[in-house]
Amino acid sequence: MFAKRIDRLKPSLVREILAAAQAPGVISFAGGLPAAETLFQPELSELKLPASIWQYGASEGESVLRDLVAQRANRLGLACRPDQVLILNGSQQGIDLVAKLWVEETTKILCESPTYLAALQVFDLFGASFESSQADWLSPTDIEASQADFAYLIPTFQNPTGRCYSTEQRQLLAQAFDLRRMPVFEDDPYRDLAFDGPAPAPLVSHLQSVPWVYQGSFSKTLAPGLRLGYLIAHPDLIVPLTRLKQAADLHSNRLSQAIVTHVLANGTLDKHIADLLPIYREKRDLMHQVLTEQLAEKAYWHKPAGGLFFWLELKRDCDTHYLMQKALALGLAIMPGDPFYPAKPQQTCTLRLNFSHSSLELIEEGVNRLARLI
Amino acid sequence: MFAKRIDRLKPSLVREILAAAQAPGVISFAGGLPAAETLFQPELSELKLPASIWQYGASEGESVLRDLVAQRANRLGLACRPDQVLILNGSQQGIDLVAKLWVEETTKILCESPTYLAALQVFDLFGASFESSQADWLSPTDIEASQADFAYLIPTFQNPTGRCYSTEQRQLLAQAFDLRRMPVFEDDPYRDLAFDGPAPAPLVSHLQSVPWVYQGSFSKTLAPGLRLGYLIAHPDLIVPLTRLKQAADLHSNRLSQAIVTHVLANGTLDKHIADLLPIYREKRDLMHQVLTEQLAEKAYWHKPAGGLFFWLELKRDCDTHYLMQKALALGLAIMPGDPFYPAKPQQTCTLRLNFSHSSLELIEEGVNRLARLI
Repeated sequence: MFAKRIDRLKPSLVREILAAAQAPGVISFAGGLPAAETLFQPELSELKLPASIWQYGASEGESVLRDLVAQRANRLGLACRPDQVLILNGSQQGIDLVAKLWVEETTKILCESPTYLAALQVFDLFGASFESSQADWLSPTDIEASQADFAYLIPTFQNPTGRCYSTEQRQLLAQAFDLRRMPVFEDDPYRDLAFDGPAPAPLVSHLQSVPWVYQGSFSKTLAPGLRLGYLIAHPDLIVPLTRLKQAADLHSNRLSQAIVTHVLANGTLDKHIADLLPIYREKRDLMHQVLTEQLAEKAYWHKPAGGLFFWLELKRDCDTHYLMQKALALGLAIMPGDPFYPAKPQQTCTLRLNFSHSSLELIEEGVNRLARLI
Repeated sequence: MFAKRIDRLKPSLVREILAAAQAPGVISFAGGLPAAETLFQPELSELKLPASIWQYGASEGESVLRDLVAQRANRLGLACRPDQVLILNGSQQGIDLVAKLWVEETTKILCESPTYLAALQVFDLFGASFESSQADWLSPTDIEASQADFAYLIPTFQNPTGRCYSTEQRQLLAQAFDLRRMPVFEDDPYRDLAFDGPAPAPLVSHLQSVPWVYQGSFSKTLAPGLRLGYLIAHPDLIVPLTRLKQAADLHSNRLSQAIVTHVLANGTLDKHIADLLPIYREKRDLMHQVLTEQLAEKAYWHKPAGGLFFWLELKRDCDTHYLMQKALALGLAIMPGDPFYPAKPQQTCTLRLNFSHSSLELIEEGVNRLARLI
């Protein structure tokens, strides 16, 4: 009775882990939640809300907000006009819209391996199959050899690996995409969480000819509860994407749009980011330090220059799902790495650890618990 | 390069008319907008917002709100538990989720003819074909004869016809659905706009065995800009629908959820509805009166007992698209009826007129302009 795609809509391990992680006393490295103390809490009484915002609005989003988003993208080096901007209910919605635009049952997607789990789930729901990079980076060779219809990638502080491509790598990849005529979907929610200097310009800014979609989010910098993100698309794509947005939910929440417009226009967003960076940097540094003290002989990782995650590869074979269960029994939630792989692999001995959500004290205690287990 | 479904994503006549209707000086009977003076404007400073609402939330929605929605449904005669409720970014989103759940390229949907245009568009996007009722009502005979996989209907103050099934008709239809084992999707956004006494209990409340989805909205009673609606589903459907919601946009806007929770909990919603009913009733009565004075010899209609629309059938053949263009030139936006028909028909001489958005003065002036044209 269900559509065939529902067979591919599997119970999400992540949902279950996140539910378990919310039990009192559990230290959670499992999710990708901003720290409670960094959440932006708008002064609602400060907002001058025109009565018209309670009426139906434009599917594209509020025009002032689209202007501000385009200006911000231009400052990053991404040339675009406001009419290429589409306001979303969080950037997860962009994945749904791009899947509707590009994915059917014959579609092949080139992506990093591992990559963002919930993107894989949506693409899979619409019937895609995947071609993965050879390494956890995507290389020009991957692109040249690929039969894929488009590429999905997170070039900046990737989820789950934390990796960030250099400007030169971005240029080489963009060249390869143009040469291979492969459209690109760049997912960029972590860019502003840059602890060691600003991130390089978006990869799509180096493209010459292929169609592209770029998307960003205010969930990691302001607050996820606002559910506000945006996409910016090549002029050939923005019309069908806007129609798909209209079909999906008419338009985005206007109150959240008003809040974010206010915060972007008066400079509060950049001030807020400047305030949260030292908090996250300290947490990242501490997790790196405790991991180094406790697990240097048992795992590989690199210190991420931004984003929310450490990605651990254990040196010895290990059932990470069993490890996750044992950790939960000790009051620690961790995320096994294998759901992040597009081609379900043989057991990989990888773990994703989030450092943004827990306090310094709990980061230390959590890594200690993990070290005892491994 | 696009997925095949994009061939079915046509430019929307409605979008174009609505854009034209916003030009200064244009009287708009074209959209389905609440009156500006009835929009609920929440006192944001009154809300006690816990800091946690700025964090990621549950895909299902806030549990207090789900409780309140379930209680309200129970009072209507629809037995359900809070865990059958899913909070949406407006009820348009429910159509997208149900389409993902039930619609693929072999799917046939039984629906009223005419019916809600944007539902047809979404079902069409996912590849559905349609079986229509013989009349603009759905009858037990339609259901018995149908080969459809499920039925989509708007039993209460339908868009565009304004029709409302009686309790007895609902019982007979429900019986036929059960007998034919045909799942039912009941779209119910207009229920609270009942000018001549309360609407009968939802059709799905009479079902004995088939799976169903019921959805409602706060756009017509509070404010569309909040983008908040809900669906209530048969227990077998709520789990996949919740996973589809998570894949679509993780969860609904938490600020709007907090506002609506507050308004439902303290009784403001019912007070607000009681305030707007006389305003809408007066507009409906006036439009009916002026139509009777001006167009009784040239068109058929019935006076709707609720909702937002009059549905006119012109007695003489007439190109309603040409009429629409001529009307726009006179500063009047009207909606031709044919996009509301699931099977694109021969020219139908029907028009949908919205009475909620315009002032009394403009309703009179608009109908006068229309009468001059016809």
